[in-house]
Amino acid sequence: MVEIPNSKNVLRYAFGKGALQSLEKILKPKRAEKGAGVVYFLDIYFQDKNLASSLPVEKGDLLFYYDSTHEPKTDYIDGLRDQILGSIGEPCAIVGLGGGCTLDVAKAVSNLIPNQGKSEDYQGWDLLSKPGIFKVGIPTISGTGAEASRTCVLMNLKKNLKLGMNSEFTIYDQLILDPDLTASVPRDQYFYTGMDTYIHCIESLNGSFRHPVGDAFSREALELCREVFLSDDMMSDQNRQKLMVASYLGGCAIANSYVGVVHPFSAGLSVVLGTHHCVSNCIVMNQMEEFYPKETKEFHFMLDKQKINLPKGICSTLNEDEMERLYLSTVIHEKPLTNALGSDFKNILTREKTKLIFSSF
Amino acid sequence: MVEIPNSKNVLRYAFGKGALQSLEKILKPKRAEKGAGVVYFLDIYFQDKNLASSLPVEKGDLLFYYDSTHEPKTDYIDGLRDQILGSIGEPCAIVGLGGGCTLDVAKAVSNLIPNQGKSEDYQGWDLLSKPGIFKVGIPTISGTGAEASRTCVLMNLKKNLKLGMNSEFTIYDQLILDPDLTASVPRDQYFYTGMDTYIHCIESLNGSFRHPVGDAFSREALELCREVFLSDDMMSDQNRQKLMVASYLGGCAIANSYVGVVHPFSAGLSVVLGTHHCVSNCIVMNQMEEFYPKETKEFHFMLDKQKINLPKGICSTLNEDEMERLYLSTVIHEKPLTNALGSDFKNILTREKTKLIFSSF
Repeated sequence: MVEIPNSKNVLRYAFGKGALQSLEKILKPKRAEKGAGVVYFLDIYFQDKNLASSLPVEKGDLLFYYDSTHEPKTDYIDGLRDQILGSIGEPCAIVGLGGGCTLDVAKAVSNLIPNQGKSEDYQGWDLLSKPGIFKVGIPTISGTGAEASRTCVLMNLKKNLKLGMNSEFTIYDQLILDPDLTASVPRDQYFYTGMDTYIHCIESLNGSFRHPVGDAFSREALELCREVFLSDDMMSDQNRQKLMVASYLGGCAIANSYVGVVHPFSAGLSVVLGTHHCVSNCIVMNQMEEFYPKETKEFHFMLDKQKINLPKGICSTLNEDEMERLYLSTVIHEKPLTNALGSDFKNILTREKTKLIFSSF
Repeated sequence: MVEIPNSKNVLRYAFGKGALQSLEKILKPKRAEKGAGVVYFLDIYFQDKNLASSLPVEKGDLLFYYDSTHEPKTDYIDGLRDQILGSIGEPCAIVGLGGGCTLDVAKAVSNLIPNQGKSEDYQGWDLLSKPGIFKVGIPTISGTGAEASRTCVLMNLKKNLKLGMNSEFTIYDQLILDPDLTASVPRDQYFYTGMDTYIHCIESLNGSFRHPVGDAFSREALELCREVFLSDDMMSDQNRQKLMVASYLGGCAIANSYVGVVHPFSAGLSVVLGTHHCVSNCIVMNQMEEFYPKETKEFHFMLDKQKINLPKGICSTLNEDEMERLYLSTVIHEKPLTNALGSDFKNILTREKTKLIFSSF
């Protein structure tokens, strides 16, 4: 008999304009129970935005700004853990407030504190043995699904690997989904990130590992993405609300399924060139006619409709050694590539073809 | 500022053919932790079906068959609680395996054990102060959403009231969603129950209290219901799987919203005539042209397509006293009627009009 996965949900979510104000009430019992501080991770974008002053930061808490220009690295997570334990000891709660990277940093640190060792020890599937510190996720941009997914993606430069701590312990205990927080996102970034939901949902629905609950989440998330990105004002109040729901559902979907061809290529770009996850995804999606013809066409239409600037020619000046690294850091993603292309995916994505696709970016 | 609800999910769900076999593994740590027995509630339908022998029932466990011919009553729940505590003490887990009524019985008993008193004390909104006993829900028919909702509906005959214990503590901790279990459901019953999802989703989406996450769940649940009930074989393997997903999502939706006009009328039929919830819903839905014209038309089409027998004339011989009781047990449902018709709903659903609608059943 095939083992049936026991899927875990985010336990609680507060959704709505102004939901951020729920945070104090949510943290109160945790502070009382453990008598310890709270650690906040905020996207660096908020450093000069006065947001911290509206958060319930108390004496004995720690607040870090995370520079999301680059994606989080395993060594960085290890260092954060050491710094926290050395300064306030084990916190009662960890709050991640930002985009996918910041949410992932909070998840990774939460996991690493009770599980000890190094974060690279937990890159893979179900390697954590203990639940992390109680964690609250507050996305400030919609699309990565990091708020609901069972992974936190980390770059491991030594191993040339971009891989998450895939575990049910990685899932947030509480979300605050406040569409007011996404109002000031730059348009291009809003599009790239929203498209992360679109892309992982079309990858899931076209894959061979299917899950009826995952499929339902993916379909509805896709429908919401279409409503947002085919409309005239993708950032209206209502559309920012819809995209926040899409991102959450997309994250729930991905917890029950795998991505496909886009994410491995995108991971290659991130590892070798340092390109950010969401823009990488879009750069790849733009050239996916062969694997996802209908969806690539729709993607092109949305890109035009929203007048989004997509970087071009990013691999045009790379040397053979860099192309080889791109190839290797793509085909290392066996699970999603098997999901999309079958176990003989290397016969389809040959070294030559993979490099040809990269050169088209 | 409007208070933002903190929505709670079912923590875990195991979905798939054969998922029932996960139960032993799920109960094991609970048995070990508490050294106490498990209480099972099975729908009486399974009494001669040999299902109990495939369940992990151990010495010191209790197994009850619930007769779902009638909906659960508050006094009955109180008696069950006393019987359990008097025989094995506080159990480590409660398992509900059956339709919506059986799932609701398991939820109500789980709530009542630590909260004490009488179950009627908790009919209403957020009246429970403690989490119930760890509970596992295993639906054997799809549609009520009882597996995911935050209520367990009980009949209170003394108060002429059909009302649930609405509380986040009522939500199951674990679901086992195994579409194999719905294969032997009679066709009419399969339709009536599946339509419960359809009906509460159209009520939510037409209501004024909206929640973007609830809306997304409702839309996808409705889409799945349409695929199932507009297809030629509504009980195919794939359709039973889809309807199980729809029911789960519909339950998640209802946790974030309210029902509308159908459920209060349906509750009236259940309280006064003892008609079962799902068939009552269908009897009401059949006459809802005024309130839900498009959906009523679609309902008629599905009813014809699936060649379902719907009881007719059930109020045709009632006397004035019975009609008055029907009216009173409908308009008592202020929240859903306000959701559907506004706070002056009694001006629309006058005594006369309400009775006229009942007489059309």
